[in-house]
Amino acid sequence: MANGDKIPAKMTAVAISQPGGPLVLKPEKRDVPEPGEGEILIRVRAAGVNRPDVQQRKGAYPPPPGASDLPGLEVSGEVVAVGEGARRWRLGDAVCALTPGGGYAEYAKVHESNALPVPQGFTLTEAAALPETFFTVWHNVFERGGLKAGETLLVHGGSSGIGTTAIQLASALGAYVITTAGSAEKCEACLKLGADRVVNYREQDFVAAVKEATDGRGANVILDMVGGDYVGRNYNAAAVEGRIVQIATQGGAVASADFAKLMVKRLVHTGSTLRPRTVEFKGQLAAALEAQVWPLLAARRVVPVMDMIFPLREAWRAHERMEEGEHIGKIVLDVA
Amino acid sequence: MANGDKIPAKMTAVAISQPGGPLVLKPEKRDVPEPGEGEILIRVRAAGVNRPDVQQRKGAYPPPPGASDLPGLEVSGEVVAVGEGARRWRLGDAVCALTPGGGYAEYAKVHESNALPVPQGFTLTEAAALPETFFTVWHNVFERGGLKAGETLLVHGGSSGIGTTAIQLASALGAYVITTAGSAEKCEACLKLGADRVVNYREQDFVAAVKEATDGRGANVILDMVGGDYVGRNYNAAAVEGRIVQIATQGGAVASADFAKLMVKRLVHTGSTLRPRTVEFKGQLAAALEAQVWPLLAARRVVPVMDMIFPLREAWRAHERMEEGEHIGKIVLDVA
Repeated sequence: MANGDKIPAKMTAVAISQPGGPLVLKPEKRDVPEPGEGEILIRVRAAGVNRPDVQQRKGAYPPPPGASDLPGLEVSGEVVAVGEGARRWRLGDAVCALTPGGGYAEYAKVHESNALPVPQGFTLTEAAALPETFFTVWHNVFERGGLKAGETLLVHGGSSGIGTTAIQLASALGAYVITTAGSAEKCEACLKLGADRVVNYREQDFVAAVKEATDGRGANVILDMVGGDYVGRNYNAAAVEGRIVQIATQGGAVASADFAKLMVKRLVHTGSTLRPRTVEFKGQLAAALEAQVWPLLAARRVVPVMDMIFPLREAWRAHERMEEGEHIGKIVLDVA
Repeated sequence: MANGDKIPAKMTAVAISQPGGPLVLKPEKRDVPEPGEGEILIRVRAAGVNRPDVQQRKGAYPPPPGASDLPGLEVSGEVVAVGEGARRWRLGDAVCALTPGGGYAEYAKVHESNALPVPQGFTLTEAAALPETFFTVWHNVFERGGLKAGETLLVHGGSSGIGTTAIQLASALGAYVITTAGSAEKCEACLKLGADRVVNYREQDFVAAVKEATDGRGANVILDMVGGDYVGRNYNAAAVEGRIVQIATQGGAVASADFAKLMVKRLVHTGSTLRPRTVEFKGQLAAALEAQVWPLLAARRVVPVMDMIFPLREAWRAHERMEEGEHIGKIVLDVA
């Protein structure tokens, strides 16, 4: 391992002291991780907060085998040590990375292939808001859902981290974007990001709105994190040969749907979760993002939408904010 | 139109006199159809009977716009006339064809691209049993489901026309085949066709059987015509990245399933129906079958499993037989 100087043995991290509400998130002293073969150690400057962190805190989403028990799926910072065989990064490089856990900490280790350069002109705080939503949206909307220019995307939860990313990326790549959100303010934010049509789901049925906006054809790709009764409604809102990609089931995992509709419309209902995927898979995704999306970021045609920033030690406040559901875009921890 | 001699103006056909039970199927005199541009007229010698015919007879599956109101989705016979621009077939050629309806008749017209030569060594009666199940299985198992050699296929209803075709084709192309059937006799028939493992669904849970047969991994592709509570059970029986293809919902269209499982296992749930597809699509399928499956038929590595043959005028008996569910393989009408 090649070390820069001044790496302490201990660091501050925020751990889940027991399953429960936001206040179970508590600062602790932990050993600084040692980068293994092909890994790098990052001095974390900012860490993104994501919905799976909340699930993990509640005890509903245990970390995969071998991963840190600390929450935190994305960080930004400087490379301060490199493990054996890791060749891509030099000490001092500014990176952002997908972590398999362990992001709520002053130091985090990741495989070098799961890190990306901080895009040109971006702060480390902005960069920490990128990996989880960009990896997720790229894979699910473009790779798994196969969205093409000229097609229509329906993305639920348009004002979430995932939603704001999906709206911008799909729009930048030539799709017609319809999104749902739950307040006038959130709808306004989605329009500013480039959504062509926003549906306030508290006031209007999204199926009717999608049909109306597409001359009855429906959406070619639907990105859904709701599940529950949205599944059957997504089947109604989808176009013939439409692809529905499930990335969470916040409204309920078990639900009823009309599978004759899935068959007659030749829909594809699929989904995925990112965290348990292999380092190699995430490395391929990182390479695709660097080639195809990082230039859009450098040109600021796509930017992370920043909601609020909290100090690492007050991670519980970040979780409260996320669970209140009033946020627009990304919530980030400042690790300093 | 180039006519052979002796084409009468009228023919005998079996029509659906009104929606209802098998006895609503009644012989009628009808005009012999005239082949349009690119079409051929077939003097029908045998016509296959399929589940959608039963649905159509009950009034639950109306013919698509422009199609004959007569039942019958597949025929064999000789080409007796060709429409303008139809170049592939000569008068007297023995063919089998997918029809958009109208198969229960002495004459039927189809687009020339939707006909295939009678495979070498096959009788016309056998050939009439091919199109519907072979088009359906090829598209859904291999194209839509992407089954590859070395993978595991679970096919429900193994003794049905679809089932017997899927077992043989998947087995001939190197897949491990698990199938379900409802009696010892049907299970025996499936084993003889090449199924590696048969589950009598009245005696054993197919999910447990699939897990056991695959060392816990599950099936890579599942061909399902049941729906209902099979949907959720298919999600349990599927391997990670498994593809579930719905071709009917005989056990119920609306059902409940665990979509978190679909997501976490990255399943693909899709499906299709054949009849409403375009002539071009069916023509592409026919070309794929001729190239990849007709040689297997000529070598008799794959054969249609013949259940019973009824005279055209007694089509109602064929429907009774299908609805009793005791058949193994294909039921065919002899048109003579």
